[in-house]
Amino acid sequence: MEQLTVYKIGGNVIDDNNMLQIFIRDLASLPGKKILVHGGGKIASSIGKALGIEPKFVDGRRITDRQTLDVVTMVYAGLINKQVVALLQAAGINSIGLSGADANIIPAAKRDVSIIDYGYVGDVSPLTMNTVILRNFIDSGLLPVISPITHDQQGSLLNTNADTIASSVAVALSAFYNVSLIYCFERDGVIDTKDCVIPAISKNEFESLKKDKIITDGMIPKMENAFKAIESGVSSVRICNSSQIKFTRDEVATGTLLSI
Amino acid sequence: MEQLTVYKIGGNVIDDNNMLQIFIRDLASLPGKKILVHGGGKIASSIGKALGIEPKFVDGRRITDRQTLDVVTMVYAGLINKQVVALLQAAGINSIGLSGADANIIPAAKRDVSIIDYGYVGDVSPLTMNTVILRNFIDSGLLPVISPITHDQQGSLLNTNADTIASSVAVALSAFYNVSLIYCFERDGVIDTKDCVIPAISKNEFESLKKDKIITDGMIPKMENAFKAIESGVSSVRICNSSQIKFTRDEVATGTLLSI
Repeated sequence: MEQLTVYKIGGNVIDDNNMLQIFIRDLASLPGKKILVHGGGKIASSIGKALGIEPKFVDGRRITDRQTLDVVTMVYAGLINKQVVALLQAAGINSIGLSGADANIIPAAKRDVSIIDYGYVGDVSPLTMNTVILRNFIDSGLLPVISPITHDQQGSLLNTNADTIASSVAVALSAFYNVSLIYCFERDGVIDTKDCVIPAISKNEFESLKKDKIITDGMIPKMENAFKAIESGVSSVRICNSSQIKFTRDEVATGTLLSI
Repeated sequence: MEQLTVYKIGGNVIDDNNMLQIFIRDLASLPGKKILVHGGGKIASSIGKALGIEPKFVDGRRITDRQTLDVVTMVYAGLINKQVVALLQAAGINSIGLSGADANIIPAAKRDVSIIDYGYVGDVSPLTMNTVILRNFIDSGLLPVISPITHDQQGSLLNTNADTIASSVAVALSAFYNVSLIYCFERDGVIDTKDCVIPAISKNEFESLKKDKIITDGMIPKMENAFKAIESGVSSVRICNSSQIKFTRDEVATGTLLSI
């Protein structure tokens, strides 16, 4: 099967213009078929605050009320998505910015409110992704740039975790391509107690590292997502610094490679 | 040639949720190939104001400084574009929201600053539109929903008048389809001094109506755009109420039909 790489960049890369420029330049220089999924960053919170909306979180997850949904739609699907697309175009890469509503690529289900009401939050599944249109874009030479805004197919947009979008897209497309998933962020990988990058982590090692509190907080759902992706057909998942993607194809180890 | 209808909705339709819902419902019920171009409305100004940015206009045209560009990108290409796409999806129409940067469909040139500096404003031409990708979308059953954000191909987004986008897209595609262009707004058409809709206006009549001050202000550039489109290959241009589009295919006259 042909190789496809799904890259995910998060808030810290987006918030730092220099990091973003380097990432885009490197991404443009890499051959092969690609998808880029991006998260949000501080811009949504600061614009929300300026509009008088206080960001609310439960367990590190944003609570999306009606006003917050409008803000994340504006910032993720508008400002960030189009700026990234314009930068890629300038680098010679014909990219297309998409939310999950566009061409119905990512239908979602509004999360059940019985335990915690997360508001307008959408849960997604690799099984319901519109892979036909995504493959059509990729195979015709377009680089899809996906923002983490989905929809319920009943007229409402929904906010979805960008890591989950990245792994779901990677899993859905692993039926058609040999998919590598790369989570890019501002650190060099998963770091041990001596501040060194752990070059590889198996599922069992992950459980130990969690128990020993070496892996904590926001890294836990990210890595759980990653292992789930591997178990569901994705060839490899790497967590690395956004400035290191040009080395991810070499034999040289970059970041942390996850395996079952 | 096959029929294609380019619809343009402006601020007043977007600002009124009821009007927008009716428009979307009617659009979804109409057969045939379509493109929807949308403008902005008061949301951009009110969000800009809340963020401390005062809207500036010269001759009815928005001056787009850096901050204003960010606001219109958020509101037009994000909030409005994705809400319209989600509503169309709910109505059973597979639509795809696009800015001019997406798939490079509308490259633009930053307007010359020698007389008035309009800021980040992009001038477009039917000659440089990426009709291949637009046709690919239309012919594969997608309804493109285009926001008036373009790009300079050098990494900067630009703000472009939505009426101009609509007429440029209509002209560019008139080489491949029999294109009707319909400007939808909150009035029933071009209105005479007795408050009656003028059912048809020729280019010569337009000049007289301008001279007699029956057509004034914002309607002048809209109609000039429309006549230019007809002169450049568009089959017909109609100006009508957004609630009347279901009648535009009938023999019954709806709104104002422009002709050379």
